[in-house]
Amino acid sequence: MAAKPTEERECRVPFKVIEGGVTAAKGFRASAVTCGIKNPEATRLDLALIVSDGPTTTDAVFTTNKVRAACVRVSQQHIKESDTRAIIANSGNANACTGVQGIQDAKAMTKAVAEELGVKMRQVLVCSTGIIGMPMPIERVIVKVPDAVAKLNPEGSEDAMRAIMTSDTRPKTFAVDVPCGKGSFRIGGIAKGAGMICPNMATMLCFITTDAKIGKDELHRSMRYAVEKSFNCITIDGDTSTNDTVIVMSNGQADAPTIKKNSPEAELFRCALHKVMLELAKMIVCDGERVTKFVEIRVRNARTLADARKVAETVAKSLLVKCSFHGCDPNWGRIIHAVGYSGARIREELIDIYFGGLQACKGGLATKTPVAEMEKIVQEPKFTVTIDLNLGTSGYTVYTSDLSEEYVDFNSAEYSAAIHAKRQKGFA
Amino acid sequence: MAAKPTEERECRVPFKVIEGGVTAAKGFRASAVTCGIKNPEATRLDLALIVSDGPTTTDAVFTTNKVRAACVRVSQQHIKESDTRAIIANSGNANACTGVQGIQDAKAMTKAVAEELGVKMRQVLVCSTGIIGMPMPIERVIVKVPDAVAKLNPEGSEDAMRAIMTSDTRPKTFAVDVPCGKGSFRIGGIAKGAGMICPNMATMLCFITTDAKIGKDELHRSMRYAVEKSFNCITIDGDTSTNDTVIVMSNGQADAPTIKKNSPEAELFRCALHKVMLELAKMIVCDGERVTKFVEIRVRNARTLADARKVAETVAKSLLVKCSFHGCDPNWGRIIHAVGYSGARIREELIDIYFGGLQACKGGLATKTPVAEMEKIVQEPKFTVTIDLNLGTSGYTVYTSDLSEEYVDFNSAEYSAAIHAKRQKGFA
Repeated sequence: MAAKPTEERECRVPFKVIEGGVTAAKGFRASAVTCGIKNPEATRLDLALIVSDGPTTTDAVFTTNKVRAACVRVSQQHIKESDTRAIIANSGNANACTGVQGIQDAKAMTKAVAEELGVKMRQVLVCSTGIIGMPMPIERVIVKVPDAVAKLNPEGSEDAMRAIMTSDTRPKTFAVDVPCGKGSFRIGGIAKGAGMICPNMATMLCFITTDAKIGKDELHRSMRYAVEKSFNCITIDGDTSTNDTVIVMSNGQADAPTIKKNSPEAELFRCALHKVMLELAKMIVCDGERVTKFVEIRVRNARTLADARKVAETVAKSLLVKCSFHGCDPNWGRIIHAVGYSGARIREELIDIYFGGLQACKGGLATKTPVAEMEKIVQEPKFTVTIDLNLGTSGYTVYTSDLSEEYVDFNSAEYSAAIHAKRQKGFA
Repeated sequence: MAAKPTEERECRVPFKVIEGGVTAAKGFRASAVTCGIKNPEATRLDLALIVSDGPTTTDAVFTTNKVRAACVRVSQQHIKESDTRAIIANSGNANACTGVQGIQDAKAMTKAVAEELGVKMRQVLVCSTGIIGMPMPIERVIVKVPDAVAKLNPEGSEDAMRAIMTSDTRPKTFAVDVPCGKGSFRIGGIAKGAGMICPNMATMLCFITTDAKIGKDELHRSMRYAVEKSFNCITIDGDTSTNDTVIVMSNGQADAPTIKKNSPEAELFRCALHKVMLELAKMIVCDGERVTKFVEIRVRNARTLADARKVAETVAKSLLVKCSFHGCDPNWGRIIHAVGYSGARIREELIDIYFGGLQACKGGLATKTPVAEMEKIVQEPKFTVTIDLNLGTSGYTVYTSDLSEEYVDFNSAEYSAAIHAKRQKGFA
């Protein structure tokens, strides 16, 4: 009897989960307004604003897609040139594939916010999510910016979150208070995802604020660590959308010591930031379009991290594997098949596969574990698949979902119908 | 107004399409019998035999999946050691992930055929398709080999083809007679596919026979050329199943001159072989599980062939693109998005996208082409999407399909249910 797969070692910090999202940390305010971006007659919130009351250290990770939305191009330029004071974000139009006009529109959004706040244009980042290839109805947006600024308040996170939702069905917000020195700092965020967890499926936006005192380099290090072990575990390398963006703003207003390189506080901050991102990332997976299963794919004992990642991502991405999850079928044959074409170094005769703690495959062969027992695990809404390559010591975990008929239906029928309706009516 | 995308230059040879599949060429016989591999009570043909009456020059291409079925391992060894006289192939069990026993079973199949035919074991190749990870019910197979040999006949192609079908709904057979010198040679084949065209989806088997007089080296060159431009255009690199196999047997019995390197006859043979494979490959796409659309993705003017291929394969593989095909939605936004994450060098502002002859996107921006016009094209069961990168001179074409709710349903429900039923009943 093979040993049960080992648990992932988790980074534990003594934090408290709190409310408040991007306005949980000191000195941040947020708001949202209705512009009618998708449809002038609509009443839903579609423009969010997040502002720090003082200067910030800000870091961001943008899509690796070579087709980048205008807002991404403008934000990348702004963050390179300046510190950041505010983020303006809209849903309903991605401002992608919109050419020179798109760049002008994205800049106009930052200009409108800058003027109202009395800061510089380059101190404002801009994000968009929604349909690709249609011009932004920029007048409808600009006219509402003064409203958004007027509404800014320290409880505005919920509204901001709702304004960036597209096909999301559930809110995605998480915040922690982390004791540090004689005080504490806070990290909180909001996110939007939906679409399949599989990467090419939807814009992923995540805005995180913190009042920790942290320098640019240390923030950057923590950011890379946390993104790599959260959003990049649900987003297959290179497969990001035209608009994907993660931004962390830190204003140093917390009542806690400055976070220095290689200090215990730095470790604390990194773990807490990772926790916030991982929780938001998992919420994105669970709220994937028409998803009915949340599945953790753990790869163990690969020759290299790169190999572990290839296996985890290939299995998580396989249509046939996703279909079998949907059908509650503990089908390890489809899994080992995907392992085989992942490109990773493997030895078929060493591969073990588990559903939860039950071993389905040992040394590349079927075990005697009763199918009925394994089915019980796969019938759960959340379960783990462990693939032990028994070749090395590297591991990697990816969070994924099933593929449902409803997903296909949603993306071929409803969604398209909605777009057509817009096109026909000339809404943009 | 942009020019319509140019037509692919096709290799034209003066061939005649004929009946007969793998028994169209002189000196080949085939047969099939019922072993009850999947289910002892079943009556469908599930074991095929193809035999050349004289010595052959044979070449084969096997899966690149690192998890290789036992039959693939045995056939790879046999073809390396010897010339080939026969192919034995079964459906109902893939003999993959079956360990040492699987190798013994695959060898036993070749031994049984060799004994009946009076040839050597290593002159027999073996192929299997079906469920992964269950032992082959080898006694039920071996006992029927004498029957299969007894039934061999020059009109046996149809039976052999039916015996290798799994979820295929339509027969896949194609043969040509090619005038050459004062006589002619014939090339004919049968194939099984189904599953999604997308590669990780199903075992693809293709058996081709020819009576052309051709040496090992020239056959190998023609084979590589033809596979690359047919089956590899429906099978994304590396994503092959555990059992994928293409075999070409040539027995030189035709009434036509020997095919020499760099001769007009070599060109003729290569083109004819490509034609046979391409027709079979297209049949596989059209018969993909629950497919309703056949779509040709043409990439033009990429910097390199590798870039053209990356773009074509990424677009063809995108779930969202496939869903939009299913929904008859000319959604170029999803296409350009996939182009962006393909990894190929692109310049967004140079990209043109066409549905049929209608331009949807010019220089990365929407055109004024009425959506209703483009919808008419995407509503057709077969259409072409052309992506012009305007960066270089390389092109690549991939044949793909839509993704339907029925595909997901089929692969999560029906198919799984069938497997479970088998498992529970202890059928193997």
